[in-house]
Amino acid sequence: MELMKSSIKAIIGNIVSAEEYLEEENVDKFEDIIIEAENVFVTGAGRSGLAAKAFAMRLMHLGVSAYVVGETISPAINKGDCIIAISGSGETNTIVSATKIAKKRGSKILAVTSYPESTLGELSDCCLIVKGRTMQEVDDENYMKRQIYGNYTSLTPLGTAFELTTLVFLDAIVSELMEKMHQTESDLKARHTVLE
Amino acid sequence: MELMKSSIKAIIGNIVSAEEYLEEENVDKFEDIIIEAENVFVTGAGRSGLAAKAFAMRLMHLGVSAYVVGETISPAINKGDCIIAISGSGETNTIVSATKIAKKRGSKILAVTSYPESTLGELSDCCLIVKGRTMQEVDDENYMKRQIYGNYTSLTPLGTAFELTTLVFLDAIVSELMEKMHQTESDLKARHTVLE
Amino acid sequence: MELMKSSIKAIIGNIVSAEEYLEEENVDKFEDIIIEAENVFVTGAGRSGLAAKAFAMRLMHLGVSAYVVGETISPAINKGDCIIAISGSGETNTIVSATKIAKKRGSKILAVTSYPESTLGELSDCCLIVKGRTMQEVDDENYMKRQIYGNYTSLTPLGTAFELTTLVFLDAIVSELMEKMHQTESDLKARHTVLE
Amino acid sequence: MELMKSSIKAIIGNIVSAEEYLEEENVDKFEDIIIEAENVFVTGAGRSGLAAKAFAMRLMHLGVSAYVVGETISPAINKGDCIIAISGSGETNTIVSATKIAKKRGSKILAVTSYPESTLGELSDCCLIVKGRTMQEVDDENYMKRQIYGNYTSLTPLGTAFELTTLVFLDAIVSELMEKMHQTESDLKARHTVLE
Repeated sequence: MELMKSSIKAIIGNIVSAEEYLEEENVDKFEDIIIEAENVFVTGAGRSGLAAKAFAMRLMHLGVSAYVVGETISPAINKGDCIIAISGSGETNTIVSATKIAKKRGSKILAVTSYPESTLGELSDCCLIVKGRTMQEVDDENYMKRQIYGNYTSLTPLGTAFELTTLVFLDAIVSELMEKMHQTESDLKARHTVLE
Repeated sequence: MELMKSSIKAIIGNIVSAEEYLEEENVDKFEDIIIEAENVFVTGAGRSGLAAKAFAMRLMHLGVSAYVVGETISPAINKGDCIIAISGSGETNTIVSATKIAKKRGSKILAVTSYPESTLGELSDCCLIVKGRTMQEVDDENYMKRQIYGNYTSLTPLGTAFELTTLVFLDAIVSELMEKMHQTESDLKARHTVLE
Repeated sequence: MELMKSSIKAIIGNIVSAEEYLEEENVDKFEDIIIEAENVFVTGAGRSGLAAKAFAMRLMHLGVSAYVVGETISPAINKGDCIIAISGSGETNTIVSATKIAKKRGSKILAVTSYPESTLGELSDCCLIVKGRTMQEVDDENYMKRQIYGNYTSLTPLGTAFELTTLVFLDAIVSELMEKMHQTESDLKARHTVLE
Repeated sequence: MELMKSSIKAIIGNIVSAEEYLEEENVDKFEDIIIEAENVFVTGAGRSGLAAKAFAMRLMHLGVSAYVVGETISPAINKGDCIIAISGSGETNTIVSATKIAKKRGSKILAVTSYPESTLGELSDCCLIVKGRTMQEVDDENYMKRQIYGNYTSLTPLGTAFELTTLVFLDAIVSELMEKMHQTESDLKARHTVLE
């Protein structure tokens, strides 16, 4: 169980050090764009997509009109809506494509990425920086990065650090949205599905 | 390709003969419950679940507030809502369970099944009968049924006949909903996702 | 219920007239590529995606190692695999992109489209032509096409004709695969999920 | 951003205090059952279902034959297989039902729950205890619990604490599986989907 404990420690370590990149003004703007949007779409590939869904479910619990790109009943995105696009590298093909279409339609773009200077970051109206070794860096043969991250490859393989930190940050944003939207836990619970 | 053609013929044959079980009053009621509902939930297991999703997508295109049970952003079901439950046998565990909960919450129940006298059929406010060999009958060792359906087991294996006929009937109901709700194809198209 | 009956008639009409475009040699090749593949991936957007899933489920029942692009446990596609890409227009962005990547990886491409001369059709090793008014034609302002299809816009709105015909053709191919792979309905049933 | 930081702190706090309930022998057994299983199924409702999918994806990356209950290509579960069922309360209807069927079929049961004495816990061959306020406790009107958890209701609403701790623990188990199965990050990466 030593390895398990080291892995948990590495995951928590990443969350804590990623906190330093959070900027108050930015987080505020991120939340306000969600609150002001008519519909909020979320999208992400693979495990980033699962983080997107986890957040969308809470947005629905909060009373936000939320949709997951690719799920059955997601309608057309329009001006007045926003899309939250999650991609560690900020370069995932399908995510960048969807974001470009959304931008052309006049929607606001919220990026969740490790790289604000990425294509996704550059497209965004507001970028939540979530540092964490991403799939892109796994590809990167750069020696220095290997040196830095080397020890973590088996503790948080592939995009694990980015994905889990994203989940935690987005759930923490839920707390702030509850306050800003005057929603109690009971309000959230009343919207929670009963068919399970 | 002879077998393929025979299979297509068997599928069309099932659709045509199932039409005889459609009753005008019933179809009308089915449509009106959808139109009057605040939210419409759909549910089905396996390929019946895919038929449910295909219908839910068109409901969204029609401007109906539609949800798929089990998808991320489906909220609590309440009085004023309806649930469309699809099950050939009318006895699928998870579908019957969800329907019972929905009924307790005061929602209207629309059943799509081959057996109006099944548990699901009995629970329903309105039952769209879709005849077609179902998964239940595959289990049934009754000699007579084997005689009747015997030739079809490889042309429309398992629930194929039920599932495809359900899809066709529900899409035909979309036509009627378009008229009743004064929705043109352009209206539907304007709500179609653009992120694909 | 007149409109419902007309819609069913239009759907069956489309299936029957689309049959004329089926070519024996082509269907055979389509089936053989599936049988010979190590893994079979399916992909499609919106309701074409639901048709893809319905077919993938039957492939699994047949004992084929099948995966749906975008579902949780779909692995990397490689040489020796094939991808079945469904798109009425043959131009759906995400589907064409996935197909191009699959081709670069050395996989065989099976297209299901109304347009063999489309980007998807041209990329394919084998193209199953499924005629039916597609989403693309809904966009097409060409007068002649509107004349031809005009009456059908409310009977089979958007891609309905293509999607349903695709479902029927793929299910008919299941019959042929059962024969070629010596699989009985009981074999299929034994692989059917029991957790529903 | 104070609330966000408090929420992150509460989430990390829950992870750290839940670690105390981990027992080496138990974690080892959990991992070994996965390694020895022919097929590994995962299931969970709502956000626990998303945690289940996140773990299943990594199992696939590890080379395990993994399936998500309810996804398109999940086959019948049999003796020799195992199912990982995630439920904070251990009483979620659909999850307990699926687990009972799996047990009857002779599969091994791995529970992930806060309550080893729950129905799910009692059904299991091995139970990974993940402490964290669960949806069940949200319902619980017990004064003492409200006292204890009161401050956390808006920091980790509903099942947040359980769900995130589950994700972290399962990802930490991935590290141990990598070692036990002699899989490097490169091995995992080679199985990662390329179609996104």
